[in-house]
Amino acid sequence: FITKLDMEMAAIEKGGYDHFMLKEIFEQPQTIFDCLRGRLDAEQGHVVLSGIQKYATQISEAHRIIIIACGTSWHAGLLAEYIIEELCRIPVEVEYASEFRYRNPIVHKGDVIMAISQSGETADTLVAIEKAKEQGAIILGIVNVVGSSIARLSHTGVYTHAGPEIGVASTKAFTAQLAVIMMIALVIGKEKGTLSHDKYLQLIRELAEVPEKVKLILQQNDSIKALAEKYKDATDALYLGRGYNFPIALEGALKLKEISYIHAEGYPAAEMKHGPIALVTETLPVVFVATKDSYHEKVISNMQEIKARKGKIIAIITEGDLVSPTLADDVVILPPADEIIAPLLSTIPMQLLAYHIGVAKGYDVDKPRNLAKSVTVE
Amino acid sequence: FITKLDMEMAAIEKGGYDHFMLKEIFEQPQTIFDCLRGRLDAEQGHVVLSGIQKYATQISEAHRIIIIACGTSWHAGLLAEYIIEELCRIPVEVEYASEFRYRNPIVHKGDVIMAISQSGETADTLVAIEKAKEQGAIILGIVNVVGSSIARLSHTGVYTHAGPEIGVASTKAFTAQLAVIMMIALVIGKEKGTLSHDKYLQLIRELAEVPEKVKLILQQNDSIKALAEKYKDATDALYLGRGYNFPIALEGALKLKEISYIHAEGYPAAEMKHGPIALVTETLPVVFVATKDSYHEKVISNMQEIKARKGKIIAIITEGDLVSPTLADDVVILPPADEIIAPLLSTIPMQLLAYHIGVAKGYDVDKPRNLAKSVTVE
Repeated sequence: FITKLDMEMAAIEKGGYDHFMLKEIFEQPQTIFDCLRGRLDAEQGHVVLSGIQKYATQISEAHRIIIIACGTSWHAGLLAEYIIEELCRIPVEVEYASEFRYRNPIVHKGDVIMAISQSGETADTLVAIEKAKEQGAIILGIVNVVGSSIARLSHTGVYTHAGPEIGVASTKAFTAQLAVIMMIALVIGKEKGTLSHDKYLQLIRELAEVPEKVKLILQQNDSIKALAEKYKDATDALYLGRGYNFPIALEGALKLKEISYIHAEGYPAAEMKHGPIALVTETLPVVFVATKDSYHEKVISNMQEIKARKGKIIAIITEGDLVSPTLADDVVILPPADEIIAPLLSTIPMQLLAYHIGVAKGYDVDKPRNLAKSVTVE
Repeated sequence: FITKLDMEMAAIEKGGYDHFMLKEIFEQPQTIFDCLRGRLDAEQGHVVLSGIQKYATQISEAHRIIIIACGTSWHAGLLAEYIIEELCRIPVEVEYASEFRYRNPIVHKGDVIMAISQSGETADTLVAIEKAKEQGAIILGIVNVVGSSIARLSHTGVYTHAGPEIGVASTKAFTAQLAVIMMIALVIGKEKGTLSHDKYLQLIRELAEVPEKVKLILQQNDSIKALAEKYKDATDALYLGRGYNFPIALEGALKLKEISYIHAEGYPAAEMKHGPIALVTETLPVVFVATKDSYHEKVISNMQEIKARKGKIIAIITEGDLVSPTLADDVVILPPADEIIAPLLSTIPMQLLAYHIGVAKGYDVDKPRNLAKSVTVE
């Protein structure tokens, strides 16, 4: 049968923006709000995700959670590993769908598989979960498109409610994935008792504040555009982060690659010394995702290493950080947030940076070369 | 007290080679043989690793194995994940030491931690296992330097016996790590009963044949040097592989980065379509690690995608592969081997390619800029 698409054509137009990508970046205060709405209640201090609560016991008791995804969704999965292991104390393994499906993966009855996909049609992810489902796993889908194949194949799940995403480089779907992941971790951590009530309440409050904080970050659009002008002729770039900001560094690099065709690569900051630091020269921009968190002191020392080799440092930092600006060539300053929530903020300036560099280079950022919106072939 | 270094100065000289790196690449038939000697008995059909056999029950019964490493050793760990999950059916998680140590990782009493380090002094790895040891984990060290800190801190382990490695970019230590990992998987798979006796015997035989096969590959040194001349002016490169060859692609890219300062990046081949394929142009060399294995048909289709975008394809393939040469611009042909053993062969031409490109560009390949041999600082 045919599923009627419940949206107006007007809703998918550019609404005054030059590109869908920019429109979608600017929609994020609203899309994150939409994602949280009816689920996160900061006043009452609780999170309701019926799709997760139905399976809360099984998920809490899981020996491990396997996350399956591709591309940007894989980066969301990597952050989910950090957050779920911390708040729920369940071992998490993140797999590339294309690798998982052709291996003979270890899946036991009752294992929890989390499939993340914007379109819900990603071919490799779809086949991977079909296989795991046959082996008795519980499939939990995190998808954007309602009624999509992955949504239908999953036992349960959470929609990201980011609205239709037209730009090929994912932006608002990614932040909605992160918001969903944070809510899932809150629900499971609470159920399991691994998350204190105080921390639970604090994270709920902070999550509710994200849409307003994203608005503040978007007000820096002009200064990020100026940054883009300054760095647009770079041929390469490195994106570095530690902990919760490591997956965000990978995603930042992927955005730049997709939109500007600059060869950007993400790394956990400390891995630099094991090889990639050989690439550092006076012309190489190195983006540090360095918001204030428990890793911050160590990130500062990585920044010093890059500065000693004369690399150009662009640092995404938190308001009040007085050290990073003494090391960095350029900074983008974000409002403070708990380290678990901060990735939802630190990813925004990197979307804008990639967008403006792509535009400055004259590329069609909504349709980057060689790429399709949904990879529905293997 | 002081540990006396049991080696002669002569043993660490270049012995007629231009660089230690080249000498060490050419030593591999011998170092792999040394690593297998007294452990792998192809005639009797068994593997003896007393350090593993002592803990065979605990390892076999482990709910999961966590591998901790940095840089090249991390790539060996990633391959260990594929091999151990396949042959021993134990879930394996591979962690960057620098990330693991600053998290609040989930480690239970009796969990098995495998620490991989050439020097045995890698600071992040050392601290990470100290922490895990306090939490009651069994520490299994895979190190090259006898009596090193990681060796002393481990409960048990296996030395790689590759001899002193002087070149900063690891070559022979890496292949010895792979040989050790393969032997460990054979011992545990046999103990656990997840590996059939026939397959056990076949893999032992194939492993014993590796030194001779590596010799054959090294005979292609001149043609790989010619390849290096052809591609030395590339500014960027992609290295792609699937399955067992995915970690080898990552390692190939790291070698090129370290030695030639060309920005090479490794990816699981199917992830290309989720972003990196935007980088492909007529001047971009794309190295496919495409030896004949169960993923081969899929790798061929990834090769077709790159060819359609006019990327330059260098394919590392198996003797008898008639399809890849019709797609690739250049091929390096390897002797056949079981897909689990093949990484020990496919990594060799990538070492030579990186070496010759570095030399052709006039760099000091034994001491690449910004890098130290052992990263003994955090």
